[in-house]
Order: sequence, then C-alpha cells, then structure tokens
Amino acid sequence: MREVAVIGIGQTPVDEHWNLSLKEIAGMAVMQALQDSGRHQIDAIFVGNMLSGLVTKQENLGVLISDWLGLLDVEAVKVETACSSGAAAFRAAMIAVASGDIESAVAVGVEKMTESLPVETTSFLATAADADYEASMGLSFVAINALVMQRYLSVYKWSHAQFAPFSVNAHANALFNPNARLHEKVTSESYAKARMIADPINLLDASPIGDGAAAVVIVPASFVRGDKRAVSVIGSASATDTIAVHSRKDPLWLSAAEKSAKIAYDQAKVSTNEIDLFELHDAFSIMSALSLESCGFAERGQGPRLGLNGDILKTGRIPINTFGGLKARGHPVGATGIYQIVEVVQQLRGEGGPAQVPDAKIGMAQNIGGSGATIITHIFKGAQ
Amino acid sequence: MREVAVIGIGQTPVDEHWNLSLKEIAGMAVMQALQDSGRHQIDAIFVGNMLSGLVTKQENLGVLISDWLGLLDVEAVKVETACSSGAAAFRAAMIAVASGDIESAVAVGVEKMTESLPVETTSFLATAADADYEASMGLSFVAINALVMQRYLSVYKWSHAQFAPFSVNAHANALFNPNARLHEKVTSESYAKARMIADPINLLDASPIGDGAAAVVIVPASFVRGDKRAVSVIGSASATDTIAVHSRKDPLWLSAAEKSAKIAYDQAKVSTNEIDLFELHDAFSIMSALSLESCGFAERGQGPRLGLNGDILKTGRIPINTFGGLKARGHPVGATGIYQIVEVVQQLRGEGGPAQVPDAKIGMAQNIGGSGATIITHIFKGAQ
Repeated sequence: MREVAVIGIGQTPVDEHWNLSLKEIAGMAVMQALQDSGRHQIDAIFVGNMLSGLVTKQENLGVLISDWLGLLDVEAVKVETACSSGAAAFRAAMIAVASGDIESAVAVGVEKMTESLPVETTSFLATAADADYEASMGLSFVAINALVMQRYLSVYKWSHAQFAPFSVNAHANALFNPNARLHEKVTSESYAKARMIADPINLLDASPIGDGAAAVVIVPASFVRGDKRAVSVIGSASATDTIAVHSRKDPLWLSAAEKSAKIAYDQAKVSTNEIDLFELHDAFSIMSALSLESCGFAERGQGPRLGLNGDILKTGRIPINTFGGLKARGHPVGATGIYQIVEVVQQLRGEGGPAQVPDAKIGMAQNIGGSGATIITHIFKGAQ
Repeated sequence: MREVAVIGIGQTPVDEHWNLSLKEIAGMAVMQALQDSGRHQIDAIFVGNMLSGLVTKQENLGVLISDWLGLLDVEAVKVETACSSGAAAFRAAMIAVASGDIESAVAVGVEKMTESLPVETTSFLATAADADYEASMGLSFVAINALVMQRYLSVYKWSHAQFAPFSVNAHANALFNPNARLHEKVTSESYAKARMIADPINLLDASPIGDGAAAVVIVPASFVRGDKRAVSVIGSASATDTIAVHSRKDPLWLSAAEKSAKIAYDQAKVSTNEIDLFELHDAFSIMSALSLESCGFAERGQGPRLGLNGDILKTGRIPINTFGGLKARGHPVGATGIYQIVEVVQQLRGEGGPAQVPDAKIGMAQNIGGSGATIITHIFKGAQ
C-alpha cells in the first residue's frame, strides 16, 4: 500500500438545515473540499451515511451526490456502519487510493436528521443496535448508554458530577468553532442541574443530533510531497465487538477501540504520548471515559481522572474534541467521522485559529458505530 | 495492487424465507463459503445490502453479521449502491485484499424483502431512484423501466414479442438451478400472454424479488497458486451515470456499463469475444438488451437480435444468465451481485452441472444499481 494524504477539507455548519436537501449539504462540503484542494476532478466518491433511507426515503446516495456535483461518471458508493459510517467511508476511500486502483477520492459524510419527528429519530437511531435483542425490548440508544454509565459509576466508584469536565471542555472548545451546533458555555453547576434524560445520563451528557456534511479529498502522499497543508494518513484500522452490549464479557471495555487503536499505533509507529490531540466519539460523556481507557490514555476505570486533572484541555496532556466533539459540534451521525477528520486536519495544518492545539504534529480520530460495536481509528501526521 | 482470487462460494436458495432472519440467511451463505474455502477465519466482512433499515429496522449489518458468525473482532462494514450493493461489497473486499491492508475477506450480499407488504416494497425499491424528481412523481421502478422499454421499441422498431428469448432463456436455465426462485418453463406463447404490469413490461419481463444471501471468500491469488478451484479476479471497475434516467442525453444507452466494462476489459486484457459467459443484470428484459449493447456484444439498438439468434444460449456465442439470472434465479436486490459472482465461479470451476457452459474459462458479471445509475463490472478467470 502506498501512503495517502488529505489535501482538501470542507464542512457545513451542523445545524437544522430546513431549507437544504441532503444532496445540497453534501455538495456544499465536497465543493469546499475540492476548492481547498485545488482540484476539480476526482476518480471516486465514498459517502458515509446512516439514515437517508429511513429519514428521506433515498438510498443510492453515492450516485445521487456524484450526479448532483456534475461528476458524471465517477465511481460512487455509500458505506454504512451506523454512527461510524463517516470513518468507514474515509477508510474505504483511503484503501482505494492506497491500493493504486484509483488516484484520487472524496470521502463525504452526510446526515439529514431533523426532517423526521423526534420519536422517529430515536427509533431510527436504534437500528444501530440489535433489532432482535435490544431495540425490540424498547431499549433506545440513550438507554443502552445509561445502563453502561450506571454500571461504570457503580463498579469504579465515580460520581456523576465527576464526568462534568467532558461536557464543560467540549462546550468551551465549541465556542471557537463557527460550525458547531451549540455555542453555550457549560459549567459544573449547569451540568449538575441539567434535565435528566435516562438516569444517569442528563441533557449535558448527551450529544445533539443535527444536519451536516463534511468532506475530504485524498490522493497518494507522493503526489504532494512538500505541500505544507497536506496531512498524511499514518494509521488506519477498523474492528468490531458484539453488536449488543449485553453479549460482552466486560461491558465497560471497548475492545474494538483497543484493537483498532493498537493496529493504528503499530502502523503509525507511535505511542500514546506522541499523540497531540484525539478527536474521540463522545456521543455520551461515558464514552469519553471508555475511549480514553481502551486506547491506552488512562488506566481501566480511570478515564474521568483525565477530565478532572485538566489533561483533556487544549493545553493538557491529551487534548480531546478540540472543536467541540459530538457533544457541542453536534452529531449528524453518518457525517461525524468525517467532521472529526476535518478537525484533525485543521489542527495539523495549524489552521485551528483560537481552537489551535499548540504545536500539533500527530492527531487521532476515532469513530464509533453502535454501542462500541464498530470502532474505526485513524492517525494523521502534519507536514509542518 | 496484487491479484486476488475467489476461493470459496456459498448461497441460500432465493425464496420467501419466513422462518429465517436476515442474519441467519447471511450466516448460512458465509458459513457455506468458508467451508468451501477450507478456512474458518478471515480478516474482514463486507456486506452488500440495500433495504435492511427500511424492511427490518436494522442497520449496522456488518457487525450484526460478524457477531452472529462468531467472528468477534474482524472489520465489518456495509456497502450500499441500491441493487448493485452486492457487487459494490465484492469490489470493496477485493480492493482491501488487493491493497495488502488485509489478507482475507468475505463479501456477502443479503436481502430480506418478503417481510414488508408489496406496496411498501415498491416504495422501498424506489429509494434507488431520485427521491426529488422520480419517486416523488409517483414513478415506481418498473414504471421507469417501462418508459425506457417503450422508447426503445419506438426508436429501434422492435416488437415486444422479440424480447421473448431473454425471458425464455432465463427460465430454461433456472430449471437446472436448485437455488432459483422460479422453476417454471416459459415459452414465447406464455411470454406474449403474461399479465401486463406497466406497459410494455409484463410479468415475464420483470424479475421477482425474494429473500436470499450469497457469499464469497477472497484471498491474494499468490496464496492459492495451483489450486484448480481458485478463480482469479482479472478485471474490476465501477462507474456511474446520472441517477435519473430523464437527465441522460441518451436514455437508451448505459454509459456506466460501457465505461466500467471498458476499464475491466483493459485490466483483464480481453475483448468481448474472449468472454465465455456473462451474468448480466436482467431486472427487466429491456436491461438485457441495453447491457449487451453497452458492453459491446451487440450494436446499438440490436440487443434483441442476440436473443433471436440464439447467441445468448448456453451453447451460443455469449451465454447469459446461465443459472436463471435475476429473472428466474430471483432478485434479492442487495444480494444479487454476489449471486452473479458465485455463479460465474461455479462455471469457471466447471461445477455448473447441467447448467455448465462448455469449456468456460473467462466469465463476466455486471450488477446495476438504480436505472443504469451505478454499474459495476467484474471479469474472472478460472484456473483450469
């Protein structure tokens, strides 16, 4: 495999885009990425999306979007792994270019969620869980995560209040991100008082849905040697666990995060202390703790300590979710994985503006589909 | 890219599997393919499926199926390009192995369609078309194809009766395929008298839906040199056209078939007269004519002549749909592309039984998503 690089990025704000269709927001992100890359033709487009069939009665998104963009004969496919569809599409694009089969690709993640009623959205999101043994029991996605968090608090003896830093940090970082869904400061006090959703998960533990699209342009790294804005992909891996949380030996351990991160570290030849920032999948604050532990940044059961110590801050040991994460940038499910990658690229280019992590050289993005079922990890290196 | 080979195949009958779930039929096909390959562990699973979110309220099929099979930590993704999802999953698996990123993969196509009501199925299938400009006008999939066939009859001056050989051939071939959905002989007379669906498409022009799964195991060809049952992938390409038929300059030409076939011919270094059989996408009989023309087996507007001349028969110049095709084997949409590939492999191994094409060495499979929107072509070579 040859090394590949990201040479263009684009994103729409995560918002309620009532006046824009799915293909329009996808098209906006792709055109921005193409413009940023200086290219206007690519060989293939890989679309990450989870819910278009259910929400907008539209499948065949690959060709829908390539057609809309006027890329009339390119290869175009949709890749789906629930909420990690974005990273799965990126990985498919990356492998296609790395293999030598094609010379350039766009990966675009897009989701339009606000067109469906809230009660529908909850049931649509539950299609990521096991329909036979979880969804059919009435377990929504937040309920599954609430059971996990409840058990975590009980086993590792943390209080709910000790998770506040994850939410506070995400919201603080999003203040500097014009594309974020939420621009509201959160404090430990407001976190403690937030409305309960599914005990112990309250409103400030949970990420908001939204409409949005993010895109990247990928070419062989050898094509762009010397380009200071090109960001190389130095690690890429995907792994799975059981789809249902109740089937796992240890429901408090993300074994697919551990496996995919380990493969990516080995490929990238880096250890955790060389990673300058980590865009992790904080769909719920409990997931921040579990991700940090499974990827080796904290001991088992000690994830919240990184929040309490300030390690996750922009100036800390392992800055996370530097543009707001799922919690405050927002979580348009199939698009999220590409937003994470776009944000890592911004950081590694030194284009983070007020969100910039000082001297960021190596960044990691991790996207999760289902409750830890599919986990995809990428590591990037800047050219600076 | 290194060359890859198919070393195992499996399939369920295409039928109404009321007593089996989606993961069960997928699992049956994968286990059969693994057993056929002599392996019991693989690195990744690529699932082709179009409708599980809509029909069975289940997404995240990659991990659903890997978990069900006890392949607990492998990479697992779903690939979707409407009715060509099967071939898209195969191509993703092929590229992943060819790139060197992984050493083995399963591609499985699976669809469970009979759980939804017929009226729902029609609307679900319309998600392959443009929701804004085709489906919203009330155009079902058969209606789109009827408009195309109507125009074809008018422009190229064929009669409906002259399309009979496509249906007659498919049904005759399916008589030898125990996995086919339909085992009913069709004659020119019964074809002419069949119930009208959407003028000029009658019941015997249209392929039946169904439940089914088919799977293949893929490894680097260098791993299986000398294995007489290994079948090499010597050409693979995917291309697109506009999603809506009305946007095309020539609605009677499958430009994505032409492009993907041309790339595949070039990769395989073969011309059309070296291809011993062609599993084409006869969702409707008009598609057989258009595919033969766009891939260079017939002059523009002359596709029906190959049927009338007997060229498409098992003993003819270019045998098509040797196990019944979509028309009689059945069309479980996201699974169809893998059924086609399984059938080509059977032929190239010389394991076609009474359906065997004499001395078959090179076979082609072509899968179409939408009305000619996404077209994926593969060429295979036997080891015999």
